[in-house]
This record gives sequence, C-alpha cells and structure tokens, in this order.
Amino acid sequence: MALYVYKFGGTSVGSVERIKAVAEKVKKAHDLGDQIVVVVSAMSGETNRLVSLAREMQQQPTEREMDVLLSTGEQVTVSLLSMALHEIGCPACSYTGGQVKILTDSSHTKARIRNIDDTRIRMHLNAGKVIVVAGFQGVDEHDNITTLGRGGSDTTAVALAAALKADECHIYTDVDGVYTTDPRVEPKARRLDKITFEEMLEMASLGSKVLQIRSVEFAGKYNVALRVLSSFKEGKGTLITYEESQMESALISGIAFNRDEAKLTITGVPDLPGVAFKILGPIADANIEIDMIVQNIADDSTTDFTFTVHRNDYLRAKTLLEGIREELGARKVTGDDSIVKISIVGVGMRSHAGIASTMFKTLAKEGINIRMISTSEIKISVVVDEKYLELAVRALHAAFKLDQEVES
Amino acid sequence: MALYVYKFGGTSVGSVERIKAVAEKVKKAHDLGDQIVVVVSAMSGETNRLVSLAREMQQQPTEREMDVLLSTGEQVTVSLLSMALHEIGCPACSYTGGQVKILTDSSHTKARIRNIDDTRIRMHLNAGKVIVVAGFQGVDEHDNITTLGRGGSDTTAVALAAALKADECHIYTDVDGVYTTDPRVEPKARRLDKITFEEMLEMASLGSKVLQIRSVEFAGKYNVALRVLSSFKEGKGTLITYEESQMESALISGIAFNRDEAKLTITGVPDLPGVAFKILGPIADANIEIDMIVQNIADDSTTDFTFTVHRNDYLRAKTLLEGIREELGARKVTGDDSIVKISIVGVGMRSHAGIASTMFKTLAKEGINIRMISTSEIKISVVVDEKYLELAVRALHAAFKLDQEVES
Repeated sequence: MALYVYKFGGTSVGSVERIKAVAEKVKKAHDLGDQIVVVVSAMSGETNRLVSLAREMQQQPTEREMDVLLSTGEQVTVSLLSMALHEIGCPACSYTGGQVKILTDSSHTKARIRNIDDTRIRMHLNAGKVIVVAGFQGVDEHDNITTLGRGGSDTTAVALAAALKADECHIYTDVDGVYTTDPRVEPKARRLDKITFEEMLEMASLGSKVLQIRSVEFAGKYNVALRVLSSFKEGKGTLITYEESQMESALISGIAFNRDEAKLTITGVPDLPGVAFKILGPIADANIEIDMIVQNIADDSTTDFTFTVHRNDYLRAKTLLEGIREELGARKVTGDDSIVKISIVGVGMRSHAGIASTMFKTLAKEGINIRMISTSEIKISVVVDEKYLELAVRALHAAFKLDQEVES
Repeated sequence: MALYVYKFGGTSVGSVERIKAVAEKVKKAHDLGDQIVVVVSAMSGETNRLVSLAREMQQQPTEREMDVLLSTGEQVTVSLLSMALHEIGCPACSYTGGQVKILTDSSHTKARIRNIDDTRIRMHLNAGKVIVVAGFQGVDEHDNITTLGRGGSDTTAVALAAALKADECHIYTDVDGVYTTDPRVEPKARRLDKITFEEMLEMASLGSKVLQIRSVEFAGKYNVALRVLSSFKEGKGTLITYEESQMESALISGIAFNRDEAKLTITGVPDLPGVAFKILGPIADANIEIDMIVQNIADDSTTDFTFTVHRNDYLRAKTLLEGIREELGARKVTGDDSIVKISIVGVGMRSHAGIASTMFKTLAKEGINIRMISTSEIKISVVVDEKYLELAVRALHAAFKLDQEVES
C-alpha cells in the first residue's frame, strides 16, 4: 500500500465533467488499495471572476480580504470533488487549508507554509477515505485566511506529501511531462522519464512553465518525489528526483529559453568599489527583478556593466540608468529589448568537460552571435538576438542528441 | 456610543452596486460613532448556482460537503463588503463563521448555534473597526463547517447581538417594516412602529414572511431588540421588543393569513383513549407537518377529528388516513384543499374581552362561513373558503381599526 498526493490544477477541474473525470481517476487508484490525498485548485476562470469582483469594489483590494475571497474558489472545488467521489461510491472528505491545518506566516497573497498538522488527515486516511484538500490556502496563527500566491496549489501538494511522507506527489497538468525543450519550437523534443530537482529548478526558472519553481524547491528540500503527468492522457510522465542519474550518460537534460528578456549596458563606469551596488540599487528599489549580470573590466580602468531584466521593465530600467549615469561618471547607456536567453541544463556538466565549447561551436556554425554568457554549475546560458531563437534551440537539441533515448 | 448588529440579506447585497450602497449605509452609522457589526448573506442567485453545481455532482449531495460548498457564498460577500468599506475609508475586517467562532452542533445543513466566542470581534470593535461576519454558517467542535439552514443569516445576526449585548439588531430586508396585514391584500395596511416578540412569532408562523421564526424565537429568548427595516428606503422600520406596549390601546396588532392550507377530517371515530395518537402518528411518521388540530365529541360517543396540513401534503395525508380508517372503526375521511387560515394577533387580547365575538360577527356580516376555529392566548385563527380570503382580511382590518394610528 502506497500513499500518493495528487494535485489537479484549474484546467483539470474546470467543469462538472472534468471534476467527474478526476473522481474516476482517483477512485481507480483508491480501488487498487493505495491511500490518496488530492489537492485541487479553483475551477479555471473562477479566480479571475473573483479578482474582477474585488477590483470593482476597491482599486487596490486589501490583501487580507483578497485572501478571504480567493480561497472560496478552492473550497468550492473540494466540496464538488468530494460529492463526485461519493456519487461513484468512493468515501471522501474535504478539507480547507484552515481545517488541515496548513499554518502559514501572515504575508497575505504570498504566504509561506510553516507547519502542517496531519493528525486528522491520517485518521481519515486510515479509515479508508480519500482526502480532498483545497490548494493555495492556509491560515496564520490568528486564524486569518492566507493564500500562497502563484503556483500555491503545487506548493500545498508538495508540502502535504512531505508532511505525510508520501511515496510520490503527482502533479497533473495539461502537459504529459517535462520535455527536452519546448515541442512547439523543436518538434523532435522528447519527454524525459526522469530529471533531477536541480535540473528542474533551472528549467523552471528559465521559462519551462511546467511546475512552479517554489514547489520544486520545496520538493527538493524535503526530498519529495515529484511526478508531472497529464490529466487528460494516460502515461508515466516525468519523475523529478533527488538522486542524480549517474547511470545515464546524458550530458545535458534539456534546453530552456526565455523570450521575455531585455538587456541594458552602462559602459565606461570608473571601476571603484561599490559600483555594482550603485547601479543595481536604484533598479532593485524600483522593484525591477534582475536576471543575468555580467561585468567586464576594460583596459582604461573603467568597467562595462550589463544585466538583463523582464522586457516589461526595460524602459523603466533604462530611464533609471540614464538618471544615474552622470553621477557615476559613466560613458553611456545602451540597451536592447529584442534579445532572448537560451540555456542548456544538465547535471552531466559537472563531470564532463567540453560542453560549453560544444555549445559555442554549434551556435558559431549557424552564424549566431552570442551577446552575453553566464554559467552556473549545471547550466550555461547565452543571450542572442531574438530572431535566432528557433534556429539556436534546434541546433543545440541536435548537437546534444536530445532527440535520442539515453541508454542506461 | 451604541453597538448595533446590521443584517443584510441576499437581495440587499445582490450586486456590486448594492454592496457599495450597503457600505455607504454602514459607514454613515460608523461615522456617527456607533460600533457596527454587519452580518451578510450570499449574493442573491449565488446559493442557487452552487446548489445546482452540487446536484450535477451527486444526486443527493452529502450534507457535510454541501455546507463546505454553500458557506463560500457568504465568504465572498464578507470580503467584498470589507473591500467596499476600505475603498470609502471605513476600517473593516471580515470574519467567516469559523473565525468568529460560531460554534454549532454537527447537524449539517440545519445546525444550531451553541456558543459564540466574541473575544476577537470585541478587540477589533474597540480598535474602531466595522466587523463584517458571514451569516448562515458556523463550525462544529471538530472544525467541520456547518450551515444553519433557512433564515440562517437572521439567526447569526440575532445570536451575535445577544453575545455582544448589542443595543439593537437591525434586519434590513426588502420591506420597510411589519404591517398590520399584507398590503397587497389590503392597501390600507399600516406599518407598525412596534410589535412584541410573541405577536411577531404568531405573525411569522402564520405566513407574514418578514423574518424567519427561528431568529425571532432566538431574539425573544435572549431579549435582543430586533428592528426590521428596508435596505432601499429610509425609515425607522418596526421594532420588535420584549416589553408589551401597555401604553397603546390596540386590541390586535395585525392580521396574518396562510394560503397554503388544506384540511382533513375523519368522522365517527370511536372516542377511546389514544385515538389522537393513532390518527396523527402515521401522519407524523410520514414527515407531514400538522398545523391546526380540532376535535369535537359527537353525541354517539364517537368523535370527529379535523386537522390542517400544507397543501402540498394533502393527497399523501388523505391516502394515509384512508388506510387507517377501517382499523380505527371510523366512518369516513373527508377533506378540502381550497381553504385558507386567517388569524388576528395581538397581546391586547389578554386583557380585553369580546375580541373573538367581534371577529365572528364581522365575518358573519360578510356572509363568510367559518369552517374551523382555533385560539391561543394572543391569536384567534379561523379557516374559511379560499375565495373569501381578501374579503375577510379587509373586513377584519376595518373592524379592528388597523388602518388608524394608535394614540399613545
């Protein structure tokens, strides 16, 4: 007998029919003798409906009240799914975040889970029931309703799996697993059977939007085996595990990319201590998130400083930089908002040399100019002109033989 | 500084605009320096929407899950109203039934309130905030969400007013008070400034659907001053108090009627001990509610037994009676489902003789035949043919001078 936590997102429970389909899937697992905890999101569209009601009430809705409002979405789903399970003869019991209880801090709309009391869930599981838990929500120490922010239902599922020491946490979504790259860009992209948490983190943060990064971090931290599967299609999905797949000889696991980048450069900055802070401080103060940072020292004891931001923040960041250029004694500010970031990710990099040079050679052969480079232990990212995105991804996919199954 | 509990029903909070209007009304009272606790229902239409979703999931929705589902309706309203109050600069804080907390028994869909913990509400009231509480809902001792059944939001308001020792509990509705009778039947019907709990109970149970009977009972028991007012129209409404209005010389306060009655008679029943139980036992076992009961002893040591039921239960009750007629040794079963009940209600009856005879004389003068009579300390009910309803109500309204203001 195994214990599984299943998580179904808004699209998977988006209609009466889909909730019934989820009930069938859950019952099938329960009938096999496994213990099942289901975490669900609000029905798709419901959160948007509630948000627009809130905006009609208040220009900047109070966050505490927003949480009270939005948490009703998941509460509706848990009751409906429990009813659907009862209707097909599967014993079930719903829980709100407060009932579990999922204790969080008091940061409304983006709360962090502090503790989960699994006593009642265990009692009902041992009584043979399916437990249906509202994702995305919790309560703080004063019983105020909180929500966990974007991807909160994934986080709830992983946190429950950790608390219950579940065998696996299944994230059902509209894709059937993690791919070597986006199949819309490279049709030869292949579903991975396994990927490590570290690789998944790099893939997720780089724009492969299968899982929310927070839930992957959480899963890694508590060593929860995560599996990404399709709600609509049978299949084994992709298992995300702690163990590195040393047996596999794959050098890299996948290629991620991000279309939403823009880059800014300030050149000829006198190279004095504290210059990085002087440049990036005002950007951070304006709540603009910085992604890659590259600094080169030029010959004349000045430095060129380049960083990337989300494309939406490009103009704001540029104006800020121009405002501080003179004070810094820098030469000029340049920028480009038609660039993309492409990254190759793989734990195999740690033990294999020559991966970076294969990447650069491949891009050079296609005549693609590299504008920025940044590396970490298990990834290499390059910034290139937007127009080269598809060409670069396909060339790298082929160069690293990602379309071919790896021999164990 | 006074403490008021305001209750707004589904129609009063049925749209964004109406919730904003409620916020304005609440702010006005708060600005005068009074402490305000607001109890709200689900937006009109929302409960029906949720009920039909539930029915699509399960033919007979599990009651525990139904409560989880329906309680979201009020939760949405409390958050939206709090936002609307914030938007116009009025500090406010929402509470679900579980957060207050309103402790109930575990009878899902028709729970009874056991206790209210007002600690947190008092704290926030003293901090100058308006408290917005979800009506209709509570939690049992195991933190399961419960709902209070029909009229539950009124009950929540009254229970809170009792717990907080509020000066008055205002029930805002779509009528502007309690009338001497239904103005659609008698246009001369007059709004009463005051009515006693006992009178209100008789009026409510007799079909004047201004307030739910449970909340009136509750208010009477805990001596909460209730006031019925219109959400949409300015006015003082009707105050429902414990004190009898001895200063007023009104003999009766109003005329109630009920169109949904049907009467059943079993004649020639041998008059033996236990016969009433033998007749009414099977009716009660079939969950049919009995209203009036009249028993006459005929000369031949048999008895005629007549009672009234809701018109919807008429055929079922008749079939049951016919089934036991032979066993009882009774002569025959007759019935009539085109009758109505009309009652005059007033605490003045206690101290004034001749009220019954005035009633009977008035009806006789109009040629209206009385089919049944039943009396209690403060009301006299008669059953007459349906066709006489309007005529009887108007004649009685005039005979007891209900269209005239009472001199204090």
